[in-house]
Amino acid sequence: MEITEISGVECAGIREKYGLGIVRCRGFVAGVFTKNRIKSASVIVCKDHIADGRIEGLIVNSGNANAFTGEKGIENARKMCRILASLMKCDEREIAIASTGIIGRQLDMDWIEKKIPEVYSRLGKTKRHAEDFAKAIITTDRFPKKAYSKYPRISAVAKGAGMISPNMATMLCFIFTDAKFDSGELYEMLKEAVDLSFNRLIVDGDMSTNDTVLLISTARERVNRDDFQNALNGVCLNVAKQIAMDGEGATKLVEVFVEGAKNNCDALRIARAIASSLLVKTAIFGNDPNWGRIVAAMGYSGADVDEKVDIIFEGVSEVKLVEDGVPTGREEYAREILRKSDEIKIKVKLNKGNGKGYAIGCDLSYDYVKLNSEYTT
Amino acid sequence: MEITEISGVECAGIREKYGLGIVRCRGFVAGVFTKNRIKSASVIVCKDHIADGRIEGLIVNSGNANAFTGEKGIENARKMCRILASLMKCDEREIAIASTGIIGRQLDMDWIEKKIPEVYSRLGKTKRHAEDFAKAIITTDRFPKKAYSKYPRISAVAKGAGMISPNMATMLCFIFTDAKFDSGELYEMLKEAVDLSFNRLIVDGDMSTNDTVLLISTARERVNRDDFQNALNGVCLNVAKQIAMDGEGATKLVEVFVEGAKNNCDALRIARAIASSLLVKTAIFGNDPNWGRIVAAMGYSGADVDEKVDIIFEGVSEVKLVEDGVPTGREEYAREILRKSDEIKIKVKLNKGNGKGYAIGCDLSYDYVKLNSEYTT
Repeated sequence: MEITEISGVECAGIREKYGLGIVRCRGFVAGVFTKNRIKSASVIVCKDHIADGRIEGLIVNSGNANAFTGEKGIENARKMCRILASLMKCDEREIAIASTGIIGRQLDMDWIEKKIPEVYSRLGKTKRHAEDFAKAIITTDRFPKKAYSKYPRISAVAKGAGMISPNMATMLCFIFTDAKFDSGELYEMLKEAVDLSFNRLIVDGDMSTNDTVLLISTARERVNRDDFQNALNGVCLNVAKQIAMDGEGATKLVEVFVEGAKNNCDALRIARAIASSLLVKTAIFGNDPNWGRIVAAMGYSGADVDEKVDIIFEGVSEVKLVEDGVPTGREEYAREILRKSDEIKIKVKLNKGNGKGYAIGCDLSYDYVKLNSEYTT
Repeated sequence: MEITEISGVECAGIREKYGLGIVRCRGFVAGVFTKNRIKSASVIVCKDHIADGRIEGLIVNSGNANAFTGEKGIENARKMCRILASLMKCDEREIAIASTGIIGRQLDMDWIEKKIPEVYSRLGKTKRHAEDFAKAIITTDRFPKKAYSKYPRISAVAKGAGMISPNMATMLCFIFTDAKFDSGELYEMLKEAVDLSFNRLIVDGDMSTNDTVLLISTARERVNRDDFQNALNGVCLNVAKQIAMDGEGATKLVEVFVEGAKNNCDALRIARAIASSLLVKTAIFGNDPNWGRIVAAMGYSGADVDEKVDIIFEGVSEVKLVEDGVPTGREEYAREILRKSDEIKIKVKLNKGNGKGYAIGCDLSYDYVKLNSEYTT
């Protein structure tokens, strides 16, 4: 289900000098943004604008992050909103904005000013319109990310591939629904969904200046709040996994499940340490069931751990590599599973308590290095 | 100056199924070990043995970390010490031990037991003996690491290439001196030197189960303590830089200098965040002066930062890329410098206070991925 299938949502996008996308979506809005102390001008302006909880439209550009651009960057972000607001005949504070791309360069505002009316004139509700918008917002992504729930109706479109760490990172995610909630309710639900999905996502540990997740409701239909929360959690987790799958150069999705930790906090630390470990990530890329690196990551996670653990790999089938601290010697079988699987689950069981934790990551390949050493300033 | 040039130090080493090295070094000893909660059997036994502060000999193997090997691993580590102690006619607690290599496999003790007497019989004081020992302890290192001070006489030998993070990681470093200090004094001085060198070193953020730094004094000559501390700091920093240079797949040494932070703690956070950033590391590999990634790393370091910074790259010459928060547009010149330099200094100046910080790292190349996806269990 495309975002344009949500009633009240129209969009358009182009990909030329920059990507430029526009959405018309009168309703309520809530947002979660980067925790990086250096925030892009678009994040600063967007946070300010959506504080009122009302939205008429959204403008997004890719190719230039409008970050580290000082006062001029802020002016440019406001100007983008103002131009769209005048076309939409609304207040500029009812326009949300997001940017992604290179840091430290001023936007080419001549191009932007010329193109906003052009993109605006193309707004529409077909699948093609949704696809154009999705393509307009991506950077090094191999594919646009989309996820939806049929009922309650939720449709999300996202970009994100590199620079992904816990606490989000260069990802933009725009989630639309016709379920009727005010902006306060939307914020609470978005916060929970983000904590359980994007905040568990680790590609390379870097956190961007531009992360933006917006939840926008066109407020057409009353929906049970628990149902909506569940559906929203599912949509966000689905998008997060797609981002991990598209981690720059990633060949495998890696999910880490920890149980039996002292508490949930410890379990999350362990899960994140494993999903973040470059040595674990490169081993997975090499189809190498190197559980020693998992043990090492557990050990430095800061959590209370000892050697009495189970370590299980699951792909096309499952294999226990360590049982109660004793290696089972089943590496060859595990290697076979790794070779055949695009999605790997690493399960770690401790005997410290009832803590459970989860993290999402991906492997680390030559292409990660290639993409990031050649993506130029 | 080789370790064998320290009076009272003899050594030998072989490289066959495993590397195996032995040092005779009657005197005082102090050690700093991994902070990983999962510690190798050799670390557990070594900590126990050197607690008395006296040492007669040291035994080191490479190729098998003797980590995650349970009670049997501990027994094997003790047995290695016992065999050497019987040859050296001392107490087994006067033998220090270290291991590095694959985690989770029991040592082939038949091989070890057969080879200890053989290596022991080769102990000697020539340059060749020192070289044999240095080669015996390395794993994926491209070269053994050595550093020395002529006076006070200090000579160090080390291994370490991958899995290096703040708080050390798979590195072994054995530092010998004839300066007369007791084990308590040695410990205090070693702690300071390690804090200023190995604990600033970042290759991939993983921390091993086996890190061991020993400072061994054969106690022949009285030396001024301040002189010794300075010399020791220099030796450790020299070794740390060699390890960064030999970071798996590294092509460039990267030193990060931060000044003007709110305090030293903030400055160190910023320095570490920059040196750890995969995006910064891959950019340096690609000769890409992508200061935007430096800004992003500063922003998520947790330190108090704003955009009013200077960012300077220094290699064969120096270039200011950002001045008081404004990009200078000198990327092409910076690219040229990166291309021509094996050693890069990244200097960041803030206006928050007098905090200074320093970190050592390296770039991230294809070969990092290659080495770590193919170094097999």
